[in-house]
Amino acid sequence: MPSIEHIIAIDAMGGDNSPDKIIEGISLFLKEDKNIFFNIYGQADPVNNSLKKFGITSENNYKIINCETKIENKNSVRDAIKVGKDSSMWKAIESVKNNESDLIISSGNTGALLVISKLLIKMIEGVDKPAIAGLWPNFKGTSIFLDLGANIEFNEKNYLQFSKIGAELYKVIFDKSNPTLALLNVGSEEVKGHEELKTSFNKLVNQKNNFSFHGYIEGNEIKNGDVDIIITDGFTGNIALKTAEGTANYITNEIKNIFSNNLYGKFCYLVSYFLFKKIKKSLDPRKYNGGIFIGLNSPVIKSHGGADALAFYYSIKLSAKILRGNLIKRIKSNIENE
Amino acid sequence: MPSIEHIIAIDAMGGDNSPDKIIEGISLFLKEDKNIFFNIYGQADPVNNSLKKFGITSENNYKIINCETKIENKNSVRDAIKVGKDSSMWKAIESVKNNESDLIISSGNTGALLVISKLLIKMIEGVDKPAIAGLWPNFKGTSIFLDLGANIEFNEKNYLQFSKIGAELYKVIFDKSNPTLALLNVGSEEVKGHEELKTSFNKLVNQKNNFSFHGYIEGNEIKNGDVDIIITDGFTGNIALKTAEGTANYITNEIKNIFSNNLYGKFCYLVSYFLFKKIKKSLDPRKYNGGIFIGLNSPVIKSHGGADALAFYYSIKLSAKILRGNLIKRIKSNIENE
Repeated sequence: MPSIEHIIAIDAMGGDNSPDKIIEGISLFLKEDKNIFFNIYGQADPVNNSLKKFGITSENNYKIINCETKIENKNSVRDAIKVGKDSSMWKAIESVKNNESDLIISSGNTGALLVISKLLIKMIEGVDKPAIAGLWPNFKGTSIFLDLGANIEFNEKNYLQFSKIGAELYKVIFDKSNPTLALLNVGSEEVKGHEELKTSFNKLVNQKNNFSFHGYIEGNEIKNGDVDIIITDGFTGNIALKTAEGTANYITNEIKNIFSNNLYGKFCYLVSYFLFKKIKKSLDPRKYNGGIFIGLNSPVIKSHGGADALAFYYSIKLSAKILRGNLIKRIKSNIENE
Repeated sequence: MPSIEHIIAIDAMGGDNSPDKIIEGISLFLKEDKNIFFNIYGQADPVNNSLKKFGITSENNYKIINCETKIENKNSVRDAIKVGKDSSMWKAIESVKNNESDLIISSGNTGALLVISKLLIKMIEGVDKPAIAGLWPNFKGTSIFLDLGANIEFNEKNYLQFSKIGAELYKVIFDKSNPTLALLNVGSEEVKGHEELKTSFNKLVNQKNNFSFHGYIEGNEIKNGDVDIIITDGFTGNIALKTAEGTANYITNEIKNIFSNNLYGKFCYLVSYFLFKKIKKSLDPRKYNGGIFIGLNSPVIKSHGGADALAFYYSIKLSAKILRGNLIKRIKSNIENE
């Protein structure tokens, strides 16, 4: 019998190709780690079929909680709250509220997940609202970047609190004791940026932080890897992330086209086949799958709706890391010390 | 004798490797187009040396206006204004004010160029402040993107005016009569974004525009090429552009490393040499060099400080296009019709 350390609630019905990709992601995880238990929320029949399909036979690591409905991506947040109480997402979040699970992962409707989580799990005392943090690859490793879109505007309190919380998140995920943190801005000089940024900058310079404050960085510096945690408001963060995704897509497509549009190109592609495999692996966005909702009384992990089984597996790995690192306890002790 | 259509003022001293790269850029341009005349502002000796070096012998297309000082990148805007009156940048801008030149190009200090241009050339009547527009490559061609950083915040009037002005800029550069325009946002639904965006969106939907209004687009859609002009505030725009540059840099570096870190990689690189040349050409950022300051009584073109002669040549080509398309007249007639 495995010794269960933590219980993760899984919304098995969100995103494309569910529950298959969700269950396959769990099966990949269980091959290497049997100390996590899964409460699987979803329609029992398709979930059972998926479990069979992906060879999860022992019931040591899961139970199914049958939910007849699900929240669709096309549902407005208001509809999701009104009619979603029997859905897999709602029930999964509720299990965290009732201490039946330690954390929830969903590939479903982001807005609904955010609002229902806030409604049921509630904010950590002293924190106003949740933010969404994500992993961002760089030349030296991986940074944490937030807010990816939960808050269109940030005030000084948001900058300061999410800096604190982001730093604890980084420490837990990457086992580093004194990470560096920067605010994203349009220049590195103190006079740059809008008022909230400048007053936050001044506070961070003059107070004791749970990280090493690096000052401002610009968009092109995110990739350098000199900074572990990068803080920006949800409007800018969402646009920066999506612009980066679009740019990556554009460049890899240009290269793909040039290596496939005539015989010489195809020949070179064949010769370089193993290099392209390596490039694909090195740039694989699935490794960075998982938006982490922070500021709530429990971590909530949003897996990308279009992500596949491997990407979902990475979200589970990230979740296990967060639970084992006692993230919420660490955040609370930092917020209390304010 | 060439028949001169327009006169461009050149600040020959700004940016790295000046005046060499500036004069070489002019020489590249003059090889294909002799109908532009250049007022070259800079230190006469080094400028004359460069002219000789790059084989500009006939004086039909230029004159040198000797300026003993120059504004450095490290100068604050305040210092630039206080002590810069004899500098190449100031004198070049002044020549536009005095109708001795039709447009100015500089590779120098962006802040100084923006503030001195506003001071001397003044805003078009009815326009509050300048914005910086740039060219952004996409799957189908090139878009115009603004604001790249002149205005940290935008109000509704800014969104509406810069949409109008951006549309005329696009028409002049790309000879297209009814371009599409979108506002950059964190989602495509009407309810997304902050207040100024939403009220601007509503105005653009309900009024007659000098473009076809496409609504909102997200950061990952910039590259699709479905939209010709993309409008956002200077804070977001600056960070989006620089994040895209950083991402492009990251990906091309990863690929370069994989194609050079062992013998097999180097062999594949050699085999694919002509493809890599093609990729380099296709992704060459120099083609998109030139920030265009708009809203002023004359176009002001900022060439990237680190850009080389070829990039500077592209800025001149862009400038000639803008002058021949009568941009300022077109903008004025659109602003008057408000």
